[in-house]
Amino acid sequence: MSTFIYFADIFGVIVFALSGALLAGRFRLDPFGVMVLAAVTAVGGGTIRDIILGAPVFWTVQNEYVLVIFFTSLATIFFIRQPKLVPKRFMHIADAFGLALFAVLGTHKALSYDQTILTAIIMGTITGVGGGLIRDIICNRIPLILRQEIYATAAMLGGALYVAFDYIGFSEPLAGSLAMAGALILRLAGIYWKVSLPAFHFDDEIKD
Amino acid sequence: MSTFIYFADIFGVIVFALSGALLAGRFRLDPFGVMVLAAVTAVGGGTIRDIILGAPVFWTVQNEYVLVIFFTSLATIFFIRQPKLVPKRFMHIADAFGLALFAVLGTHKALSYDQTILTAIIMGTITGVGGGLIRDIICNRIPLILRQEIYATAAMLGGALYVAFDYIGFSEPLAGSLAMAGALILRLAGIYWKVSLPAFHFDDEIKD
Amino acid sequence: MSTFIYFADIFGVIVFALSGALLAGRFRLDPFGVMVLAAVTAVGGGTIRDIILGAPVFWTVQNEYVLVIFFTSLATIFFIRQPKLVPKRFMHIADAFGLALFAVLGTHKALSYDQTILTAIIMGTITGVGGGLIRDIICNRIPLILRQEIYATAAMLGGALYVAFDYIGFSEPLAGSLAMAGALILRLAGIYWKVSLPAFHFDDEIKD
Repeated sequence: MSTFIYFADIFGVIVFALSGALLAGRFRLDPFGVMVLAAVTAVGGGTIRDIILGAPVFWTVQNEYVLVIFFTSLATIFFIRQPKLVPKRFMHIADAFGLALFAVLGTHKALSYDQTILTAIIMGTITGVGGGLIRDIICNRIPLILRQEIYATAAMLGGALYVAFDYIGFSEPLAGSLAMAGALILRLAGIYWKVSLPAFHFDDEIKD
Repeated sequence: MSTFIYFADIFGVIVFALSGALLAGRFRLDPFGVMVLAAVTAVGGGTIRDIILGAPVFWTVQNEYVLVIFFTSLATIFFIRQPKLVPKRFMHIADAFGLALFAVLGTHKALSYDQTILTAIIMGTITGVGGGLIRDIICNRIPLILRQEIYATAAMLGGALYVAFDYIGFSEPLAGSLAMAGALILRLAGIYWKVSLPAFHFDDEIKD
Repeated sequence: MSTFIYFADIFGVIVFALSGALLAGRFRLDPFGVMVLAAVTAVGGGTIRDIILGAPVFWTVQNEYVLVIFFTSLATIFFIRQPKLVPKRFMHIADAFGLALFAVLGTHKALSYDQTILTAIIMGTITGVGGGLIRDIICNRIPLILRQEIYATAAMLGGALYVAFDYIGFSEPLAGSLAMAGALILRLAGIYWKVSLPAFHFDDEIKD
C-alpha cells in the first residue's frame, strides 16, 4: 500500500470516527460510549469484510487505527462543544471521500484474496457502508444509508469501476484513483443536486 | 447437493428476499436499500452460520445467490406496486417452506463440518431464523421470530429431526425430507391453528 | 483453565443468561425467544471475540455452555414469575462479577492467540460488554452500556490490569485475580456511589 493510500485511509478513519462521535453527542453517552460509536462507524465495515474474507481483522494487527479512533474521540469530546464547529459542508465532502476510498480499497482487498468480481464489489460496498449501518442500528434508527441520496449506490459504482479498470489493465494506482473519483462525483452529485433514486413505497399489511 | 435441493434452496432464497423487499416498501427505501434488506433476509442466517463454522461464506463462492437476490429485488420494485399482489397465504406457506429447508440444510452443513449434534441443531436454527432477525433489527422492531407462533421452535425441530434420522441411519435425502416435513407441519400448525407457546411476561423494573 | 476459573465462567454465563431472560419478560416473548435473548447476552461477546481471533467459537466445542443457558432460561420462565424474586442488589453484584471475569478471560484468551496488548484489551472489553450490547440492540433500545456508570470502562480497566500484571511477571492466577478485583471494585463504585464519567452531549443538527 503506497504512502498516499495509507494516509488517505487514516483520513477516512478519522472522518468516519468523527461522524460516529458527533452522533454520540445526541445521546448523552459517556466517553467510552463515544469511543465505541466512533470505532464501529470507522472500522465496522472493514471488520465485517475481513471476517467474511477470512482475513486477519485489519485493526487487530495495525493498532494505529485504534489509536487514531481514540484520539479522534477525545478531540471531539474536548474541542467540539458546538456541532456548528464542524461545518456540514466539510462533513459531507469528507464523508463522501471516506465512502469512495473505503469502497475502492475494500474491493481491492477482496480481489487480492481471490474473490470473484461480484463478491469483490459487494465487499467494497460493505467496507464503505457497513460502519454507518452498524452505527445507525446501535442508535436505534432506520439506517440512513438505505434511503439516502445515492449513498450505497456510489460505493457500488466505485467497486465496479475499480474492477473494470483493473480488468482492462490499468495500474492499481490509476484504476483506484479513477474509481474513487467516479464514486466521489456520484455521491457529491447526490448531495448537491439532490439526485435520488426513486423510493420504493407502499403501505403494506403483510405480517410475516 | 442434489439438483432438487439446489433448486429448493434457490426458491428459499427468493422467498426470503421477497419478504425483505416487501418490508422495505414500508420505509421508503431507495432501490439499493431494498436490495440490502432483501439480501440480509435471504442470506443473513447462512452467513452467520458459515462465519461461526469457519467455512467460506457460501454466497462469496456461489454468486448465483447474489444474482437471484438482485433480480428478486428488481422484480419486487417493478411489479409489486400493491402488496395485495402477493397473497398472505402464499407468503406464509412459502416462508414456512424456506424456514424448514434452511434449518435442515444448515444442520446438515454443520454436521459435515464435524460439529456436535447440539451445535448442528443450533446452526440449523441460526440458518433458518438469522436472516429475519437481522432484517427486523435493521428495521428497528422487536424481531417477530422471538414472539411468533412456533417460528424458531419449528426450525429447532427440523434440525433435531434431521440429526435423529441421520443417527438412526436414514439416507440423507430421506432424513432431510422427513425433517423438513416435520418443521413445515409444525410451523403451518402454528400459523393456521394459532398454536403458540405461552408467552413469558411480567412488568419488571430491574434496570441492569 | 483451572477448575475455579471454569466454574466462575459458568457462573458468569448463568448471570448474563438470567439478565437476558429477565429482559425478555418485558416483551412477551415465547420460550424460545427467551432462550435466544438469554443466549446472545451470555455468549454474544465471547462469540464476537472468537470470530475476530479466528478461534473456534467456544460454545460450539464446549456445549455445556448451551445447556447452562437452556436450563437457566427454563428456570427463569418457571420459577421467576415476579421479577422481585431476583433482588436488584444481587443482579448488580453478579453482573459486575460476570463483567470483570469475562473481560479478564477475554484478554487472556487474546494474548494466548498472540494478539498485541492493545488488541487483547479490546478483546477483553468486547467479551465483557458485547453480549449486553447485542441484547439491547435486539430489544430496540440504546445500549445501556454506552451510557451507564463506568460499565465498559471497568471492562477496559480489567483487561489493562491483566496485561500489566502479566507483563511484570505475575503468575496467571494472581494477575487474573487482581485484574478482576480491580474491574469489580471500579464497577461497584460506579453503581453504589453513582460515579459516572461526564456525559458528552449537544443537540446537533448534522445530518450525515
